[in-house]
This record gives sequence, C-alpha cells and structure tokens, in this order.
Amino acid sequence: MKIGFWGAGSMGSNLARNLLKQGLDVVVYSRSLEKARDLASSGPKGTATDRRADLVPCDVLFTCLALPQHVHGGFLENDSLYDGMPGGSVHVECSTIDPALAGELSSAAARRGIGYVQCTLGKTPAAAAKAEEPMFVGGEARAVSEVWSLLETIGRPVDVHSAAASCAVKLISNLVGMTNLAVLAEGLRLGRAAGMDMKQLLSLLADTGAHSFQMDVRGPWIADGDYAPRFALSLAHKDLRLGTDMAHLWKESVPLFDAARMLFAAAETQGLGSEDCAAVMKLNERSDG
Amino acid sequence: MKIGFWGAGSMGSNLARNLLKQGLDVVVYSRSLEKARDLASSGPKGTATDRRADLVPCDVLFTCLALPQHVHGGFLENDSLYDGMPGGSVHVECSTIDPALAGELSSAAARRGIGYVQCTLGKTPAAAAKAEEPMFVGGEARAVSEVWSLLETIGRPVDVHSAAASCAVKLISNLVGMTNLAVLAEGLRLGRAAGMDMKQLLSLLADTGAHSFQMDVRGPWIADGDYAPRFALSLAHKDLRLGTDMAHLWKESVPLFDAARMLFAAAETQGLGSEDCAAVMKLNERSDG
Repeated sequence: MKIGFWGAGSMGSNLARNLLKQGLDVVVYSRSLEKARDLASSGPKGTATDRRADLVPCDVLFTCLALPQHVHGGFLENDSLYDGMPGGSVHVECSTIDPALAGELSSAAARRGIGYVQCTLGKTPAAAAKAEEPMFVGGEARAVSEVWSLLETIGRPVDVHSAAASCAVKLISNLVGMTNLAVLAEGLRLGRAAGMDMKQLLSLLADTGAHSFQMDVRGPWIADGDYAPRFALSLAHKDLRLGTDMAHLWKESVPLFDAARMLFAAAETQGLGSEDCAAVMKLNERSDG
Repeated sequence: MKIGFWGAGSMGSNLARNLLKQGLDVVVYSRSLEKARDLASSGPKGTATDRRADLVPCDVLFTCLALPQHVHGGFLENDSLYDGMPGGSVHVECSTIDPALAGELSSAAARRGIGYVQCTLGKTPAAAAKAEEPMFVGGEARAVSEVWSLLETIGRPVDVHSAAASCAVKLISNLVGMTNLAVLAEGLRLGRAAGMDMKQLLSLLADTGAHSFQMDVRGPWIADGDYAPRFALSLAHKDLRLGTDMAHLWKESVPLFDAARMLFAAAETQGLGSEDCAAVMKLNERSDG
C-alpha cells in the first residue's frame, strides 16, 4: 500500500510519523523540501517531495491542512489531485472544514471513482504523538472500512457515519470550547474587579458548576499572563466563523456562538491573532487600573 | 452558644441539620411550624418556631434564603432582626445575594454592634448534607474568626477576605455555569441538525476542549429529555440578573453573560421557569423537525 501525506504542521506531522514508524510506504509532501525530508526520515520507507503531483500515485491520500481554502485549492480548483489519483483509492481528509465543503469534496471524489473519508481530530498534537488522537470518522461505508485499520494505527477512530457529522462534531467542539473560554474570561475579569486573587478564584470555581476544560487548561495561563500560542486566536476565530456559518446555513439560532465570534473578531482586530486564544481575556480588560 | 437558623429550604435544612446533629442549641424558624419542628427534631437541642422574632436572642444567626428580597425584608425594613440581636452577636448570611446588598447589611449590622459574615455556598444540597459544602467566607475579621470553627462543622469554609468577594465568587460561579449550559445547548442543537445521536455526541465532546461540568451533569438529562428541576430555570435567571447587574454597576463589559440572561429570560417567558435550568435547551428548538 502506497500512502500520500500532505500536511506537515504540528498535528499532521504527528499523524504522519505514526504511519512512518509502522514501516509503511509514505510519500510526504511539503512546500519546504527540508521539512518533508525531516518528517519522512522518521520511518524506513518514507520519501519526501516538494512537488504536490508526486502525491497522486497512491492508494490512500491523507490531508491535514490549516485552512479550508488549502483543501479547496488542492482538490476543487485547477490541477485537482483527484485528476491523478487512481480509481478505488481513498482520500482521508483530517482538516477542520465545514460540511458544505466536505460535501463538494465527496462528490468530486466520487465522480472519479475515489472514496472520500472525513476524519476530523478531537484533541491536541500531544495526543496525536501518542497515537491517542480521537478521530471522528464519517463517509462512504466501503471507503471507511478500507482505511479503518490504518486509522487505528495512528489514533482512536470513532464512526460518526457521515462526513457532515464528522465536520459538525469538530466544529461544535471548537464552538463550545472557545465560547466557554470567552465566558471564563468574563468571569475572571469580574473576580479581578472584586479584588480577588486570580489563582484563588480559579481553585474555588473548579469545585463548582462553572468547571470546564478551558478553566483547567487555560485558566492558569491567564492567571500567569502567559499567552504563548498553543492554539492561536486567529485559528479559533476561523473555526468560530466556519461553525457559525454552518449554523446559519442550517437556520439554527446560535446567539452565544455569534457573540463569541464577534469577540474573537474584535480581539484579532486589536492585534491578538498570533497569541493563544486565551488572549480573548485581554479584549475588555480595563485600562484604568 | 445559642444559634438561630432561618431557611429550611433544600440547602439551608442540610446546613441546619449538621449543626443540630452536633448537639448544638439551635432555634429553627419557618413560616410553617411543621417544617420547623421536623427540622429541629434532628438534634437533641433543637427548638422550632413560626415567629421570626424568636430568632433574635442568639449568639449566631444563620440565614439561607431563596431571594435577596427575603434577606432585605428581614434586616433592612421595619422590625429588622438586627434591632433585637445582642451586641457582639454575629449574622452569618449564606444566601446568593449581590455585593451591594451585602454592603448595606454589613453597615446596618455594624451600627448595632453586630458582626456580619457573608458565607456563600459553592455546590449542591447533596454536598451540604455530607458537610462537604464549599463555603466562600468573607467579612469583618473578628466576626469571621468567631464563627470559623462552627462553619467547619457544617461545611468546608475558605476565607475570601471580603463580603463583596464572597458574593462575587458565588455569582461568577453561577454566571459561568449557566452560560456554559446555554452554550452547550447551542452545540447540542447543532449536533441534532447534523443528524447525530445525542448520547454519542456527548461522549465524543467529553474528550475535547468543549468538556464542562454542565456537560457531565446536565448533558445526559438533556439527552433523556429529563427536565425535572434540580436547579430551577427561574432561579438561574435570577442569578444571571444579580450577576449582570453587579457587572454593570462595576462598569465591566460582559456581553456573553448579558446574552445568556436574555436567553433565560425568554425561556422563563415561554413558561419554562419551574423546569430545570437545562430547559434553556428547549428555547430555540425547531418545531419543523
């Protein structure tokens, strides 16, 4: 089996490394040949290329890209990779994209006899590195079953049945998580206004109905003023745009997600886009001391 | 030591029972003499009354009431209980009230030589029953130290230093918790629109950055359509009003809390006030499905 891999970012590189370490035959593509070579060298049968077309003679092609427009550019515009992929091959798409784009990709793949599997990712690059990444998998049943054992070697796949559901779970996860983060920031600013020590406040809230993943993970960073980007605010804002656009298309009322989207947009406008998403804390901070 | 206790609701009765079981001398007041007698009988030295004035000859008076106006009526209007309480006694106020009201109470108590301690409660009646209720304690240092060992017999006191901070922690806890709940509801409605099974969606989200206390506790109730009131929606709405009013008074920007307040207000208008707060899920549910 010949595998193509496009996406040498922090998430994709960990997934690719899991495949390579299994001794699988993987072609790694990156615009930076050095980056591709570095990654390909983590397994005995890895090869590197900086020519995207080298990906196409494969049985399974993985993509794990930062933005939906990268996926669109690779498959739905001129020189689509689908044009070169053999019939019966499978595209495993791991990026955070919306159901509408997944639908277009799935149709375009089907027209060339290629299977399409959406496989969004639930957690962090650290989990991916340990082959423990939750994977929300949906698509054509035959294609899903063909790649299932492969997915089990790089993470923890769960069958959510449709590509739309795969995209939706991931977007819902980020909508809820990022909105909870902005909610936490409002609470912490109120605590500061009440003269409270931020760390005491966090430890007290942890034992109440206010508790959340974002409180555990980003609360301490906020208390320390540490906004080094683990998940950049600009990416969080992008996911809120994708998620709320999906909701609007479906005519679902999501006033809190809409409000969170506006807050992250304002934070990005204020120059906080390259900091961690927790920097939404700084948006409405008072300057009067 | 003579203790007065006003508040035989689900939270207060558990706290009073802890005092009574220690063999302490506790006068329990309720408008329902039967309710007071029932509670007072849980210890050897409990007495019951339906006359509020019987509370005043005490060293420590506890109040644990459902609404701020009940506390206001007892201490800041005609026939204030402070008028009868002996100098040097201490009022331990456990209700969810705002810092402005706590400030008025504290001043009125001080004018009569009475100590004022704010002691808001972090969790549920079940935790109170096990004497494990987190208590956020603030007030005049002398009064706090006088009642500290008593508080340790009925819960887990933490010194937050000021009455304002005590009120603020509790309100922040409910603002964040109830807003996270409304956020979760938006996510679950989107999942339903994507055709997902609610229980699978909850189990997948639990292992992502969307995880929260509200997801763990109220997610399964929502999936089961079980809206029996553990914490009534009308009380959640009341706390969102108190919390956002506090924020506005302090000139803090809290757009997500404001939006959540509007959603709970709309849900109450639609007749959901006596259901569990999780019924905010039903507010924007589609009727065409």
